[in-house]
Amino acid sequence: MTLSFNKRLQEICIKKNNRLCIGLDIDPDHFPQGRDTTLDGIEIFAKEVIDGTIDYCPVYKPNFAFYERYGSKGYALLERIVDYVNGRALVIADAKRGDIGNTSRQYARSILETMGCDAITISPYMGRDAIEPFLIDIEKGVFILAITSNKNAAEIQNNPNDTLPLYEKIIQIARKLNKDDNIGIVVGATQIDLMENIRRLSEGLAWLVPGIGAQGGDLQKSVSISNNNGVGIINISRGILYAGDGNLDEIINSAYQYTEQIREIVCNPVSC
Amino acid sequence: MTLSFNKRLQEICIKKNNRLCIGLDIDPDHFPQGRDTTLDGIEIFAKEVIDGTIDYCPVYKPNFAFYERYGSKGYALLERIVDYVNGRALVIADAKRGDIGNTSRQYARSILETMGCDAITISPYMGRDAIEPFLIDIEKGVFILAITSNKNAAEIQNNPNDTLPLYEKIIQIARKLNKDDNIGIVVGATQIDLMENIRRLSEGLAWLVPGIGAQGGDLQKSVSISNNNGVGIINISRGILYAGDGNLDEIINSAYQYTEQIREIVCNPVSC
Repeated sequence: MTLSFNKRLQEICIKKNNRLCIGLDIDPDHFPQGRDTTLDGIEIFAKEVIDGTIDYCPVYKPNFAFYERYGSKGYALLERIVDYVNGRALVIADAKRGDIGNTSRQYARSILETMGCDAITISPYMGRDAIEPFLIDIEKGVFILAITSNKNAAEIQNNPNDTLPLYEKIIQIARKLNKDDNIGIVVGATQIDLMENIRRLSEGLAWLVPGIGAQGGDLQKSVSISNNNGVGIINISRGILYAGDGNLDEIINSAYQYTEQIREIVCNPVSC
Repeated sequence: MTLSFNKRLQEICIKKNNRLCIGLDIDPDHFPQGRDTTLDGIEIFAKEVIDGTIDYCPVYKPNFAFYERYGSKGYALLERIVDYVNGRALVIADAKRGDIGNTSRQYARSILETMGCDAITISPYMGRDAIEPFLIDIEKGVFILAITSNKNAAEIQNNPNDTLPLYEKIIQIARKLNKDDNIGIVVGATQIDLMENIRRLSEGLAWLVPGIGAQGGDLQKSVSISNNNGVGIINISRGILYAGDGNLDEIINSAYQYTEQIREIVCNPVSC
């Protein structure tokens, strides 16, 4: 039976009793001394992180910029990492694409078909016809940027001069487009004051919440609010990859600590 | 002497007496019968188009989606195409990137350093800190989406409920960030009614104008308005690549016809 992306996300989150998404923004400039900083080293490290966390991590999110930085060889590494996960978890392509219809169609082919990712992050500046081509396969999902975690986000997304804040307009569009239950939104964990209202506005949409850890977002509120009326996954990148002195045990332990915290906050249908 | 990107753009436009940008959105699904539709065929075709037009075309704009569609092999082809131009024209990476600061920095490295493109298109949804990392090298440029040519653009970019339309807000930010004269904006050629006002608001910024040809924009007005108080380049993709029956002579002839039309409209300091 074909399941919608949001159902697939819910299933794997329940199965692994977790809402953690590990952001694979691997940056060898932050490797501890002695770890191989070549592309081979990055590949070994990425696979070790996956191997060490796959039993309890439902979602990985490679950040395309950190691979494209190495050109086509980095892009090929990205393909190998997606292949390595091989259905044991979902993979969200953090690529922030979005363009006119015929171009978005090519990006959808590139990332959801050729590379085989399960979902992609989308920038909605160009409007709904830039999003629609990504929605064709209902098993694949999109996470549309709504309100992000960076410091200058509000100027565009939540400007006091707007009658209706842009992020609310984007959520309205997302809900209208979500006929096949394969749309989510990106809500930065630093936007704590707005979260409850955004959850009410975005009933049924999945959430991807970045901004915990290095960016200072609130884990407790992010987990509990995002998982009310929908599935919310919490992305941690630097907070896990650079944990402690950056050795592998500390990284895996950090991912497990986040998992335990998340499990305490979410009352999982399996565990509670 | 180090020239800013906008100065470099102006110089090459004056030197070639043209404002044409050929969009390399190469799609073998539209190749005429008999042309090789493999990646090798795409590469040969791209180089033939460049060879046939390089004497008078100042700017090429490969659309990343049409290469990423083939995964890392397509990405490697993109690198070879940029290398092939090799400074004989400017190359704008039509990649529509934009992310939080540390990620945008990696995209800038990827596309402006590793790949060596001269400029990149940027989606401004995440605000000014998503744009700044692309501005570090003043010889390299960014074209920020302001008002695009697709049918649902207005809903986001020029919504009648906004006190200040979003595209105007973006232009204000672009002007503030343009300290080193390396910023341009994207203005769709289908937005004819707004163009004169946008040119007034964006004095000094370069323009990249897509939407002529397949999308139905107005060439005469796009060229004359965009080249008033700044340099405006006119992108044609499908209108050239699919000209006539799609054979190479027709394609090159079409590019030359557009060039002649543009030359008639712009009074070039060299030719007039």
